[in-house]
Parts: sequence; C-alpha cells; structure tokens
Amino acid sequence: MLVIKIGGSLTDFDPLLRDIAACREPLVLVHGANKELNELSARLSHPPRMVTSERGEISRFTDAITMDHFLMAYAGKQNKRIVERLRAVGANAVGLTAMDGGIAIGRRKPHLRIKEGGKVKILHGDHSGSIERIEPKLLRLLLDNGYLPVITPPAISHEGVAINVDGDRLAMEIASALQAERLLIFADTPGFMRDVSDERVERVAEYGTGRARVKLLAAAQAIRRGIKAVGLLDGRGEHPLMRAFEGAGTWVTT
Amino acid sequence: MLVIKIGGSLTDFDPLLRDIAACREPLVLVHGANKELNELSARLSHPPRMVTSERGEISRFTDAITMDHFLMAYAGKQNKRIVERLRAVGANAVGLTAMDGGIAIGRRKPHLRIKEGGKVKILHGDHSGSIERIEPKLLRLLLDNGYLPVITPPAISHEGVAINVDGDRLAMEIASALQAERLLIFADTPGFMRDVSDERVERVAEYGTGRARVKLLAAAQAIRRGIKAVGLLDGRGEHPLMRAFEGAGTWVTT
Repeated sequence: MLVIKIGGSLTDFDPLLRDIAACREPLVLVHGANKELNELSARLSHPPRMVTSERGEISRFTDAITMDHFLMAYAGKQNKRIVERLRAVGANAVGLTAMDGGIAIGRRKPHLRIKEGGKVKILHGDHSGSIERIEPKLLRLLLDNGYLPVITPPAISHEGVAINVDGDRLAMEIASALQAERLLIFADTPGFMRDVSDERVERVAEYGTGRARVKLLAAAQAIRRGIKAVGLLDGRGEHPLMRAFEGAGTWVTT
Repeated sequence: MLVIKIGGSLTDFDPLLRDIAACREPLVLVHGANKELNELSARLSHPPRMVTSERGEISRFTDAITMDHFLMAYAGKQNKRIVERLRAVGANAVGLTAMDGGIAIGRRKPHLRIKEGGKVKILHGDHSGSIERIEPKLLRLLLDNGYLPVITPPAISHEGVAINVDGDRLAMEIASALQAERLLIFADTPGFMRDVSDERVERVAEYGTGRARVKLLAAAQAIRRGIKAVGLLDGRGEHPLMRAFEGAGTWVTT
C-alpha cells in the first residue's frame, strides 16, 4: 500500500495523475491547495495572513472567513478537479476531506501566540490544529472496495469544527494508520539532497528551513512509525511516479 | 430509507440538520448551493448568466470558469459546512459530489440553444447535462456501514467531465436507484398546494412555473418509479423534518 502526497504549489498535476491511474498498487492520494487558496483569498479581498509562531514556525492564520475560502480551494476546486481528472483517465476516485467520516480528528488551538516585530502577540479565532487520531475505517472500506481515496485538509476538531492541518503531516498520519509501506511526497522541487540515512535525517532537519524542515521531520516520524520508505520527490515533468519507483528523488529508509 | 433534498436558496440549514442528525432511519442528504454560487461568481467578477432554452426552461450557462466556482460553492463551502455541522451534532456524515465514485453519470450537452431577444442563439462550451445512470454501489456501501452520505452536484459525463445537473432531479434519481420509500424536498417556500393527487400532478405542473414546475415534474416521475411519497416542504423554522413527518407541506403519493 502506498500513500502519495501532492503539494499544493505544483502547477501541472496531469503527468502525476496519469501515473497514479496506471498504478496497480492500492493507494491513498493526499493533496493540498496552498497556491489556489492564496489566489482565491486575494481575489476575495481577504489576503492570506502568514504568521510566525514563538518557535519560529510559519503558518496561516485561519479565521472563519479564511476557512470558508480554504474549503472552496481545497475541498471544492482542487479536490474535485483531481477527482474529475483521475476518473477521466480510468481511476475510481472518491474525493473527501479529512473531516468526512471523521478521518482525522485533532485539537483546535483557537489562540495563536505569534511574534511580530520582535513582540509576542496573541491572535484569537484561529481554526488550525494538530492531528491527534486517524480513524481508518472509511479509508479501508473504500480501498477494500476498489476506490481510490483522494484526501485533503481540513481535519475536524473534537468539538466538530473544521481545522486547518498540515497536508504533509496528514499524509504521514494516514500512511502510519494504514500501515503503508511507502509514503511518496511530491512537490515542485527536485528533492532535498542525496542519500539521507535515517540516523541523520533529524539533524538534517535542523538545517532545513520552512517547508523543507516540516517535510523532513514528517519523513523521520513516518520511519519511526514503521513506514519502510519515504520519498521526497519532484512532481514536475513526465512520469514523476514512474521515475520515483526507479529511485529518483530523496529517499529516507529504514 | 429516505432521501432528503435541501434547496440551495435556504439560508438557515441548522434546524433541519439537527432534525436529520436525530433521525434514526437511514438517509441520503442531497443539497444545492445556488445562492452561494451566485454570490461567489459576482464577487469573482464572473456573474451568473441565466439563459432561456427554446423550450422556455431557465438554466445557468456553465462555462469552465463557472464550473470552477460551482465546485467551490457546492463541493467546497456548502457541502463541507453541512458535513461539519452534522458531525458536530452527532451524525456520521460523509460529503461527496455525484462525480465521486461515479455516483451520477450523464450526457454533457456542450452546445446550448437559447432564446435571447426573440432570436435563437447557440452558446458553446457549456458544462451542463442530464443524468442517465446512477451507480448506487458507493452510496449503499456508506449506508450499510453507518455513514450519512451528503451529496451535491456536479455529476460526471461519460467522457469524465464535471457536469452541472439539477439538484432536485439528482435527489429523485438517487431515491429511485436506492428504492427509497420517501423523497423529501425542502425549500424556502411553504410547499405548493394542498392535497395533490398523483393523477393531477402532471397537469398541475403545466400551471407551475420555473422551479416549482421542475420540482413537481420530478415528484411525478419519482412516484412513477416506485417511490411511495414525495414531500415538497418548508425548510424554514424549527423542526422542519419533524413537521414533515407529521404531515405538513405538499405531499404527492401513490
């Protein structure tokens, strides 16, 4: 079993979706829609507000209006255009958010401590959180019946509120819950480095910045949870999945 | 088994969703997002273009950009806010479009013959169509496993393209394919008339105009296909589902 993540900044999904439709191994596809959301928010006069946490992590402040736009971009346009394309090329795709069927349940952190201009500030009304539990029942039901689940954030809080969660971490948590053998993370970059061994990846993550750091930490955690191989891969160009199977990209293995 | 349709012009879904979550009978919820789409399209500088067919039927011209907005409004915001709310009040909701898992397959009519200023014109590039087949496998799988499917247009064409289909007809086709006993159509109107019998509904439909006519024709067709009762109901106010069970609204029965 495979879990494949497509980054929301990738502009042309088509070669990857064709490869996915041709893949015989059961798989779950997880995707983001970061670029789509930024564009939509700007057009709807509610531009993205990126904030830096006390720990130095950059995240999106997701107020209720941003969550509406998030749902439009992630669950609406991106998820369904992917499902449409996959079905057109022969895959039996079913698109869901991680809220549907309670796939990913997490804790909402409504108050966000941020650093702005050297000062610590608290922002209220954030709709973000971290995943605490994966309920794999619906995903297994779909996989066992020949469907290809296409999953996107948001997840849902214990109180039943949509929460913005990191897409890479969602993919990792799903891979772990389904005991997937491999997790393949495609982005619009050529991978990170060559031959990263498990022992060194935590240290490597210290050097990585921003998104690369999050990806490497998710990869390291996936390995600790029993996934045999995590690929950080280039989603651009022809046959990206086939190239990954042939060994291209950065692989973290046990 | 019940199929419940919520019209996209209803503004406060909450009382109905609470009743639905409390309902013990297995059910499928179908919804639209007409109002949401009109607002979004206007804000994104691509206002809705309603056209009149040669036969006098009013429909939305759905070019590729409108379909993007359609997916955002129907599959994104509306579908997921309904799923979120249902989950918060205890229902095990799963939101899908009729494309997912190939639930509703139809024929796309890319060229639309319209009447405009007394003249017949042809508009190209429409993404609308009519449902030709329901594949109930995914819906049954979800119902048999305790999920509440929440379904919205679009459907998918034989070629794998998203098509705008009428939400009332989608609900009727799903009810028919699942051999539902009752189809309940909620809108922001107090029903149509009192005591409509099956024999007269086709004639009644001649007098109805616009949306009312489409609803009555769908109701008549549902009855011919073996659904025992179709309710045209008021979705506003407290406990709309309970009131419908008590006999409020317009019912078409065998």
